[in-house]
Amino acid sequence: MGGDNGVGAVMAGIARSLKTSSQIHFLVHGKKNDLQKEMCNYPEIASSCSIISCEEVVKMDEKPSAALRSGKRSSMWSSLHSLATHNADIALSCGNTGALMAMAMVQLRKAPGVNRPAIAVLWPSRNDRGFNIVLDAGADIKAGGDDLLQYALMGVAYAKDGFSINSPRVGLLNVGTELYKGRTELHEASVLIEKAAKDLESFTFLGYVEGGDLPSSGVDVIVTDGFTGNIALKTGEGTASLIKYFLKETFTQSFMSKIGSILALSSLKKLNQKIDPRNVNGGIFLGLNGIVIKSHGGADAIGVAAAINLACQLAESGLSTKLTSQFQN
Amino acid sequence: MGGDNGVGAVMAGIARSLKTSSQIHFLVHGKKNDLQKEMCNYPEIASSCSIISCEEVVKMDEKPSAALRSGKRSSMWSSLHSLATHNADIALSCGNTGALMAMAMVQLRKAPGVNRPAIAVLWPSRNDRGFNIVLDAGADIKAGGDDLLQYALMGVAYAKDGFSINSPRVGLLNVGTELYKGRTELHEASVLIEKAAKDLESFTFLGYVEGGDLPSSGVDVIVTDGFTGNIALKTGEGTASLIKYFLKETFTQSFMSKIGSILALSSLKKLNQKIDPRNVNGGIFLGLNGIVIKSHGGADAIGVAAAINLACQLAESGLSTKLTSQFQN
Repeated sequence: MGGDNGVGAVMAGIARSLKTSSQIHFLVHGKKNDLQKEMCNYPEIASSCSIISCEEVVKMDEKPSAALRSGKRSSMWSSLHSLATHNADIALSCGNTGALMAMAMVQLRKAPGVNRPAIAVLWPSRNDRGFNIVLDAGADIKAGGDDLLQYALMGVAYAKDGFSINSPRVGLLNVGTELYKGRTELHEASVLIEKAAKDLESFTFLGYVEGGDLPSSGVDVIVTDGFTGNIALKTGEGTASLIKYFLKETFTQSFMSKIGSILALSSLKKLNQKIDPRNVNGGIFLGLNGIVIKSHGGADAIGVAAAINLACQLAESGLSTKLTSQFQN
Repeated sequence: MGGDNGVGAVMAGIARSLKTSSQIHFLVHGKKNDLQKEMCNYPEIASSCSIISCEEVVKMDEKPSAALRSGKRSSMWSSLHSLATHNADIALSCGNTGALMAMAMVQLRKAPGVNRPAIAVLWPSRNDRGFNIVLDAGADIKAGGDDLLQYALMGVAYAKDGFSINSPRVGLLNVGTELYKGRTELHEASVLIEKAAKDLESFTFLGYVEGGDLPSSGVDVIVTDGFTGNIALKTGEGTASLIKYFLKETFTQSFMSKIGSILALSSLKKLNQKIDPRNVNGGIFLGLNGIVIKSHGGADAIGVAAAINLACQLAESGLSTKLTSQFQN
């Protein structure tokens, strides 16, 4: 029910994703009438969807604490409940991020040994894989040195188990690569992650990386606090969308450039896919007993389908079990 | 002497900028032999340049405090000295940002009433002007509510006096637009800036804005702490450079797309100029008794020339005097 584009975008996304992987079954939580009405536009998805009726909806601008108090009958709560009771493998929402995290922490509880859960996102990258992993993208606005260490370890587990990246290279986001740069918690985290890399021998620590390294092929996992990560994420998306706007302007500027764009059409479409944030849509909540994926609130059919595809890939990888055993001693 | 590309980039930038504005005179501080050797490549600039010989150079990775202790004979110190002694109107450097700020604070001193100076950068924007003003881009890694208020006022002064933007619209960078979002210092700053906007009636306060709003035509000045601003700046640059890389790939993918790019060449060149961070190169130090411009360390001739052009524009606007009287009661 959540997201800026409501039920329509979700149903269109489901229809889109079922075209490529028909094995998925959806438990769709929300206002029955609204869902049924929208489903009429996609009769082919009916057999793959069960509607779980919930008449309440968490608002996009609702304070997480308020949603937690009064939202026990909401579609968001219900979707997490189906995950907590093992009726679903993954929960996916386009709704209010803070409320989703708060409800997920109550229903799924933090995995043993985890202090702060984090949101990990896939960042478009120059490498062949097409993305790097960045966390925390906004679960918590602050993080101490210990928390940043845990993010590093969770990011490594996600990279290995979710995407088969062996010995991931981890960087810590800072305003410069020199050791003296940045805030105290970064200096602490740097020492802790360096030590963990030596002790565990399961990943490489690169030290500090900068904003310009987020799309680099020289790093796999980038660790930061949720405030900085969220600003960086939205800045990257904003820049990409600005350039798309300029690009469109460019190709309608003159007759010659219009012809040019027609000739280059298929290549331009590929470019568009690469720089389209909708195609790497889906932040995963790490550090809980269960996998929750938060789609961008502004996601349309393409974005929702991308998040669903990510969910399937992760469900099939058995990531959930591997992740939750990560911090157990 | 500083910057990743050394003397060569600076001399090439000077030569480039003199092509469009021959009225500038340069005091070039650095190792005499190196400078003279490089100047031989651009004989046309000799009459516009005076060499101020300094045999020492502040290293790019030198700690600001160390540079301050031992760098009194450096080219960086010397260039600021010529500004402090009114032999220059503006000081410009491609070198170590932290060292430049530390030396500038000692030689120029903070303007009356200013607590923390800030670095303001021009951010590519959808508006007709082509940019927004973002500060702090990295002068200081932390900022309290009071500091953020001062950044807002300095940004407003820069917008008005430097670029004739009447009644600038100011936004405070946060992880969401809802009032409860973000850190305590942002809540404090929000109240202070709101009050200042009402009292002074010289600007409009928009409240919180997000990373995606940095290039928006709906805002003129975006205020943030130097840690977040620096990460955002480098993330934006990194994203732009990633897309340029993809764009290049796109137009060499097939024979048709190559032909397409030739037809669209002049439009593509304009696009390149718009998204090229070198064309909006130049962070200005605000809150000091004198104007210092920090060029990107990686700037080439185009980048250096852009920073010089900005310097000339600001010198001609009389910004320095207007800015330093801003906080005097």
